[in-house]
Amino acid sequence: MAEFNVDPYVDLYARRTSGMSASEVRALFAVAAQGDVISLAGGMPFVQALPTDHVLEVVASVLSERADIALQYGVGQGSAALRQRLAMLMAEEGTLADPEDMIVTTGAQQGLDLVGKVLIDPGDVIAIEAPAYVGALSAFSAYEPRYLQVDLDDEGMIVDQLEDALLKGARPKFVYTVPNFHNPAGVTMSGRRREHLVALCREARIPILEDNPYGLLRFEGDLEPTLRSLDPTNVIYLGTVSKVFSPGVRVGWALAGSGVLQRLVLAKEAADLCGSNLNMLLTERYLSGDTWRGNLAHLVSVYVARRDVMLASLAEHFPNGATWTRPAGGFYVWVRLPQYVDARAMLAAAVDRRVAYVPGTAFYPDGRGRDRMRLAFCHPTEDRIEEGVKRLGELLSDEEELYRSLSG
Amino acid sequence: MAEFNVDPYVDLYARRTSGMSASEVRALFAVAAQGDVISLAGGMPFVQALPTDHVLEVVASVLSERADIALQYGVGQGSAALRQRLAMLMAEEGTLADPEDMIVTTGAQQGLDLVGKVLIDPGDVIAIEAPAYVGALSAFSAYEPRYLQVDLDDEGMIVDQLEDALLKGARPKFVYTVPNFHNPAGVTMSGRRREHLVALCREARIPILEDNPYGLLRFEGDLEPTLRSLDPTNVIYLGTVSKVFSPGVRVGWALAGSGVLQRLVLAKEAADLCGSNLNMLLTERYLSGDTWRGNLAHLVSVYVARRDVMLASLAEHFPNGATWTRPAGGFYVWVRLPQYVDARAMLAAAVDRRVAYVPGTAFYPDGRGRDRMRLAFCHPTEDRIEEGVKRLGELLSDEEELYRSLSG
Repeated sequence: MAEFNVDPYVDLYARRTSGMSASEVRALFAVAAQGDVISLAGGMPFVQALPTDHVLEVVASVLSERADIALQYGVGQGSAALRQRLAMLMAEEGTLADPEDMIVTTGAQQGLDLVGKVLIDPGDVIAIEAPAYVGALSAFSAYEPRYLQVDLDDEGMIVDQLEDALLKGARPKFVYTVPNFHNPAGVTMSGRRREHLVALCREARIPILEDNPYGLLRFEGDLEPTLRSLDPTNVIYLGTVSKVFSPGVRVGWALAGSGVLQRLVLAKEAADLCGSNLNMLLTERYLSGDTWRGNLAHLVSVYVARRDVMLASLAEHFPNGATWTRPAGGFYVWVRLPQYVDARAMLAAAVDRRVAYVPGTAFYPDGRGRDRMRLAFCHPTEDRIEEGVKRLGELLSDEEELYRSLSG
Repeated sequence: MAEFNVDPYVDLYARRTSGMSASEVRALFAVAAQGDVISLAGGMPFVQALPTDHVLEVVASVLSERADIALQYGVGQGSAALRQRLAMLMAEEGTLADPEDMIVTTGAQQGLDLVGKVLIDPGDVIAIEAPAYVGALSAFSAYEPRYLQVDLDDEGMIVDQLEDALLKGARPKFVYTVPNFHNPAGVTMSGRRREHLVALCREARIPILEDNPYGLLRFEGDLEPTLRSLDPTNVIYLGTVSKVFSPGVRVGWALAGSGVLQRLVLAKEAADLCGSNLNMLLTERYLSGDTWRGNLAHLVSVYVARRDVMLASLAEHFPNGATWTRPAGGFYVWVRLPQYVDARAMLAAAVDRRVAYVPGTAFYPDGRGRDRMRLAFCHPTEDRIEEGVKRLGELLSDEEELYRSLSG
């Protein structure tokens, strides 16, 4: 009877689907949804901190004044008023942006997909950080690139490595980077690395794709200039309101020169016609006035406290031989575990103990990262972060004991 | 100084972008936005007929009860409660649907894009109707297919033509059709054609992609069974709430067998992570209870009256030699013009006279359709429909006179 279980279309799928697989992050969302599991896995912003009354007020004003627009189709590039507001958001980080050079996307994720669609031919090389944001890998992989992986350290991408690769003849279509509060690594690219990267890519005529979802979630340290502000002609910039306001509205944007932008607009229209006018109006109105600043400042103070608890808990509960990054913003701590730990294999045991994380392997296209894990401090309360890290620490102790008993 | 205007990335674009061009429909949106132009071009539903108070009430209840969900990330497949509601919407047309087999998409347009992404390799043949929905052509063309065009008549797709092509060895990856109140042709596939198409494709093991945005906008005549209900295993079904509720929420869906569905979910996550929880909750709530039925019935009565005015105006003002379809639902009348008219070339003159339409060429991948135009009766008022058709009739008379003076 096996034939009834055979997919009748098995021969019909496009070749690009062979690169599509259920990410480890995704599988974990299901697990983390169980209330008693402490999830240090998902990067969900703490939207509970948003004042619902204010959001409701904004939606009500938008719908009572502009229902005919809110409920209608929009234009592919996105509303001009919202683009103006998003340009002001970029000004907060010292970046000049012309709303004409901007397209509103369905979250920054769609920006990644559209850039991939417009620039990647099968077999093209693109340069990425190692580790890299798992969603970027999913978006790009649908267009069948080969990856040039550039390592990270505490100063962000090791640009010298990229330069060496270029000297040896590598010709990536573009260089993808998350310079601020990296996902998953938690590190921030230093000023001198930024200067170096921008100069190198300008010289080599290789566009940079700068993905900056966390830039306004800074806990401490000086603002570094965006890559886009260092080179407005060679940097395609991706932003999102998911972390500054809400991921529930699915509003992101891309900023690019006119040749790229025109193609992004056409690709957007082919992909989903236009964004949600209701969500665009809501976001535009939410970002007018000053209430959003107070809300964001509050949110950042929540994240700082959670980061501090996570770092203190790691110091208390994690074994010797484990090291981790100290993020100055964003959502994530990146942990390097002792060599005897396989974080991917250990996940099932962790979930048994009611705690979840993302194994490092999710963030490399080549299976590396078994001795790494990403811990997110954005969503769980301080108590739960401490308890979750403690549970992981106990599990790691048991792993160590097992390792020593087997190897001794 | 010309080099400053040269796109620095001109060599970098992916090959698929060569198939991306600004559609004629899109260029017209800008024109139609000028208030004094009577637009018979865009297919915008008449959302002004929606009771804003009710929509506002629904949003308010969703936000006050579920803000933590509404403003958070969702899951790739879309909320289970909404999928259940969408299955009920399909039951209105007699189609059984399991919410487990469904993915919520960013409008039906994203369904078209994701199916293309999952099934089309460059060079693959896909079968489409001629004419075909322009947005489907945009979505598919990004994946570089070749098109097998099957003509339409008053009974919809001429399935015998498809059968002949298959007999001659054509092997399309799938067959795309809009069986109800076709865009742009306004025709509906007859029952016997449906039976024939479904049997033919089942036998040939070629999946059918059924796109049904207008099914619930029926003015008269009997309900024909959806293709999906005739063959639940070989038909991928696309739906949307854009015409039943609002395009501003960007909620559509796809229904498919598990192998296709899994890939659609992965492709959706790579494309934009998830739909807007706010919009999904709003749509789910709007479709609960019975208010939506009354709203829809009112909307349909508005469209019937507008269709009647358009048909009467065409009979009064269009020249001998022009013929048109008589849609029993949906948004569009498809006009065949006398051979001496080039509808594409005539558009500029029409806009000069403050009326717009979509030239037939937009709906064929091969430049056919110069003697056709699509007229939409969904959005303008009855007065403006009559005035718009009258202006077009006068323009066509002038064209005829010009033609006779040149050729006689």
